[in-house]
Amino acid sequence: MIQGRVIGKIWSSRRVASLPPGALLEVETDGGGRLIAFDPLGCNTGEAVLITQGSVAAGYFTGRTAPVDALIIGSIDETNEVNS
Amino acid sequence: MIQGRVIGKIWSSRRVASLPPGALLEVETDGGGRLIAFDPLGCNTGEAVLITQGSVAAGYFTGRTAPVDALIIGSIDETNEVNS
Amino acid sequence: MIQGRVIGKIWSSRRVASLPPGALLEVETDGGGRLIAFDPLGCNTGEAVLITQGSVAAGYFTGRTAPVDALIIGSIDETNEVNS
Amino acid sequence: MIQGRVIGKIWSSRRVASLPPGALLEVETDGGGRLIAFDPLGCNTGEAVLITQGSVAAGYFTGRTAPVDALIIGSIDETNEVNS
Amino acid sequence: MIQGRVIGKIWSSRRVASLPPGALLEVETDGGGRLIAFDPLGCNTGEAVLITQGSVAAGYFTGRTAPVDALIIGSIDETNEVNS
Repeated sequence: MIQGRVIGKIWSSRRVASLPPGALLEVETDGGGRLIAFDPLGCNTGEAVLITQGSVAAGYFTGRTAPVDALIIGSIDETNEVNS
Repeated sequence: MIQGRVIGKIWSSRRVASLPPGALLEVETDGGGRLIAFDPLGCNTGEAVLITQGSVAAGYFTGRTAPVDALIIGSIDETNEVNS
Repeated sequence: MIQGRVIGKIWSSRRVASLPPGALLEVETDGGGRLIAFDPLGCNTGEAVLITQGSVAAGYFTGRTAPVDALIIGSIDETNEVNS
Repeated sequence: MIQGRVIGKIWSSRRVASLPPGALLEVETDGGGRLIAFDPLGCNTGEAVLITQGSVAAGYFTGRTAPVDALIIGSIDETNEVNS
Repeated sequence: MIQGRVIGKIWSSRRVASLPPGALLEVETDGGGRLIAFDPLGCNTGEAVLITQGSVAAGYFTGRTAPVDALIIGSIDETNEVNS
C-alpha cells in the first residue's frame, strides 16, 4: 500500500456505467506522485490516507466488476505517529 | 486511477483478433508520461480524462478476454474543478 | 519481490472492514521508495524484509477478499549475506 | 497500453516449459525504457508496436497458463499518424 | 518481461509457509533497478535472465497459491545475441 494525503476531489459526469457512485479523491502520494482513488470512507482534504492499488482495489466492490484500480482503505492516525 | 489529457489517436490495422474494435487514444498523464488507452466514451483531443489500468481495465469487456490494460472510465468535469 | 527495511508502523482506526487485523509496517525499499506492507511475521524496526506486491499479496489471505497489495513474506537472513 | 519500437530479439534455450514458443522481441518504449514482449504478429526490427502488460497479456494464451506479462497486440500504422 | 543479470542470492529462514522452497535470486534489471526473483532453473551469478512479474509469476506454481511476484522464466542465450 502507499501513504498519501488528500488534495482535492474530481467530478466526472460522463463516465462508464460500471464506475460505482462515490467520491473520487485526488491524492498526493508519499513519493510526490498524484493519483485518483475511490473513497468509501468520506475522507477530507488534508487527511492522510492509506491506498491500495490494482485488482485488489476492484475486489472491494462485491457483486460487480468495478473499473477501480485505487482505493482508500484507511485514514492514517496522525496522533499515534507523533507519539510513537 | 490517473488523470490525463488526450493528445492524439493511434491506428493499428495489423492487430491481434482479441483486441476489441474502438478508439485507441494517446494520453499524456498527470506525471508527464504517455500511454494508450481504450476509449469507450468518444473523447476528443484536449479532453481531461480519468484512466484505470491493469486487469480491471480488461474486466470492462464482458464476455470476452480483451488484451486491454488501460481504459478511459470518465471525462473529468473541468468547470467543477474551477468552481470548487 | 523487492527487498526493504522496516522503518516504522502506521495505525489506522478508521478503515474499511475488509482490511484484515494485523501490523501495517512502513518499509523503505531497496530503490529508496517507501511503501506500507502487511506483516504476518512480527518484524521489527530495522529488520530487512522481502516483500511481494499486487494481487498475489491479497492471495495470502484465504477465505476472504483482502484489499492488501503489499505483504512481507520473509525476513532476510543478514548473517548469511555477509558469509556468502 | 504503451507504444514502443522493436529494437531486437532475444533467444532463450533454457526456459520454463510453460513459456509458449514464439518470438521474444526487445522493445524500446515511448518513455525510453526497455522490455521484452511476446510477439504473435511477426513484427520486424524498427516497427512501431502497441504493447499490453500484466495479467491481460497472459490472458491472450487460451487453454494454458503462460508466464507472459508483455504482449505485442498491434503494429501501429505510421502512415495514418502522419496524415492525421 | 524484463532482462536482468543475477547478482546474488538471498536467504530467508523466517518466512510465510506458502512461499515455495527454491532459490531467491537478486537480479539487476536492464534499467538499473534490483529485484528478487524466484528461480526454477538453477541460474548462476552473472547469468543473463528473463523475468516475468505480477500475478502471472504466481501462476507458474500449480495447485498452490504462491506469494511470488517475480519469476525467472529463461536464461538468455548470450552467444546468439552476439551473432545476430
